[in-house]
Amino acid sequence: MNQEDNASVNKLLQELEHHILNFEYGQSPSELYEPISYIMNLGGKRIRPLLTLMAYTLYKGDYEKILTPAMAVEVFHNFTLMHDDIMDDAPLRRGKPTVHEKWNANTAILSGDVMLVKAYAMLLNISPEKLPNCLRLFNQTAAEVCEGQQHDMNFETKEHVSEHAYIEMIRQKTAVLLGFALEFGALLADASDNDAKKLYDFGVNIGIGFQLKDDLLDVYADQAKFGKQIGGDIIANKKTFLLIKAKELAEGENKEKLNYWLNVKDFSKEEKVSAVTSIYNVLGIKELTESKMHDYFMKGFEQYASIKTPNEFAYQNLLNLTQDLVEREK
Amino acid sequence: MNQEDNASVNKLLQELEHHILNFEYGQSPSELYEPISYIMNLGGKRIRPLLTLMAYTLYKGDYEKILTPAMAVEVFHNFTLMHDDIMDDAPLRRGKPTVHEKWNANTAILSGDVMLVKAYAMLLNISPEKLPNCLRLFNQTAAEVCEGQQHDMNFETKEHVSEHAYIEMIRQKTAVLLGFALEFGALLADASDNDAKKLYDFGVNIGIGFQLKDDLLDVYADQAKFGKQIGGDIIANKKTFLLIKAKELAEGENKEKLNYWLNVKDFSKEEKVSAVTSIYNVLGIKELTESKMHDYFMKGFEQYASIKTPNEFAYQNLLNLTQDLVEREK
Repeated sequence: MNQEDNASVNKLLQELEHHILNFEYGQSPSELYEPISYIMNLGGKRIRPLLTLMAYTLYKGDYEKILTPAMAVEVFHNFTLMHDDIMDDAPLRRGKPTVHEKWNANTAILSGDVMLVKAYAMLLNISPEKLPNCLRLFNQTAAEVCEGQQHDMNFETKEHVSEHAYIEMIRQKTAVLLGFALEFGALLADASDNDAKKLYDFGVNIGIGFQLKDDLLDVYADQAKFGKQIGGDIIANKKTFLLIKAKELAEGENKEKLNYWLNVKDFSKEEKVSAVTSIYNVLGIKELTESKMHDYFMKGFEQYASIKTPNEFAYQNLLNLTQDLVEREK
Repeated sequence: MNQEDNASVNKLLQELEHHILNFEYGQSPSELYEPISYIMNLGGKRIRPLLTLMAYTLYKGDYEKILTPAMAVEVFHNFTLMHDDIMDDAPLRRGKPTVHEKWNANTAILSGDVMLVKAYAMLLNISPEKLPNCLRLFNQTAAEVCEGQQHDMNFETKEHVSEHAYIEMIRQKTAVLLGFALEFGALLADASDNDAKKLYDFGVNIGIGFQLKDDLLDVYADQAKFGKQIGGDIIANKKTFLLIKAKELAEGENKEKLNYWLNVKDFSKEEKVSAVTSIYNVLGIKELTESKMHDYFMKGFEQYASIKTPNEFAYQNLLNLTQDLVEREK
């Protein structure tokens, strides 16, 4: 394959966006289908379907054939966002009103339901002999994503969450879908089972790393580059990897201070963020989290390096995309 | 096939109940999976999976093979009940607290989501060559059920609903799933496309008839045999077939009276039920609805009579089951 035959990340993203923009989910009743177009067109980086397309191009060039099944992964992801936003009572999604705010909770429940059905319908656009295996993997992934969301909700009212339980939660809630996206692309391109499995593990490991990075950025991002308010997780007592490690390691005065800030009802947000960050600094939480994150990234990239793709250009493309994500500062 | 080889409705129902009772949806987190077992074991007549099994036995005897895919239809149905109950703010389901009442709305949303995923997983238990077609029909059906529910919610705030729009709503919300249940059983048993299609139409037509019967029973049931309070739909101004026809036909004094009862805020329930029933009686609404219902039943049974099953016993069994449902008084 010549380099000219290879699609750049931008070209893949452009075709994917075009496909998403023009996709017809259904017509009537409009109350059911408008929220789907709305959430799907709020933007986002389209990482998941892009991973599917890029995994496919590691082995085959005709990615146009799999735009619809690749998009199914994005539809599924946005279905989970639509329902998660109801559960989290979130007012905004990508800076715009969430579906349950713009319409109402019932519409968000039912539009979400039909989105999940449509994701399955889009997955059917693959050759029949691949369908049972791909659907089995998708079902497994979808159930795990729901399990992860339930664990996350459970953690809100739990006093103690272990590091292990936290990692397992983020694996299910966010990482397995990245793994599936990659494995799915590989399977559609007739990659070996070994490569497909390696790509799944690659996705899961970098997915866990990405979430640890999210946790880190909430506290240690450069405010000039970061889109959101620094310290949102600290203000909300969110059980991130940082807080879980701090609770595990804090002793004496630090433990007392941390408990004070976790329990005080009336506080200055700025003061709380600054005080908890100081405790994190004293305990070396940043370095601990970075080290954990790097372990997952490294493990992921090692797995990626062991696949047997004939296409060096596509290999570099996917490597660059994921490394950009690893190095993002917002 | 000898009559001894044939399974009675009771035997099918018994094996189905056993299969449902012992099915393992998932283990952890329990907050996600307990509500599924809860709603699935609230009882119910199991009509839909029974229709799948009975349609199968029209052509083949080894129905044990399809217990899991047949049960998928019941899991899907109960998923819609779990989410509909949130949307309708219903406190009770089969006399027991609804899932969102017993747990909370978030649990009912997420457990419902995972139920839909599990229904798909259960549908995978069919031979791979049948999978694409069966899944396509299921996706189409599932989307229509959601569309019907959205139309039903839309009707609540609409001034005028036409007879045509109402029939189309109940077709989508309740009838197509009965059609799918029958067609699915036929397809799994390698029936001809013609028979499969006829069974689908049979299910849809009797499904519409059943809903018209529900509408009728709310007003004209024998209170001694009926499980619920007579006139619940009248009290709630529910846009049933009866009310839609009455609004269409009422003139002069009847129209004034009907409008009065539809708009009055403070009223005696008993008086309202009695007054609206009188208007229905004057307008001949009962006979009109019965005639419409019989049209659908007749059309359905004609389609059923035209299938080419080799098994007279199974044919009679399914005929008896559906006729019992047609003649039920509660």
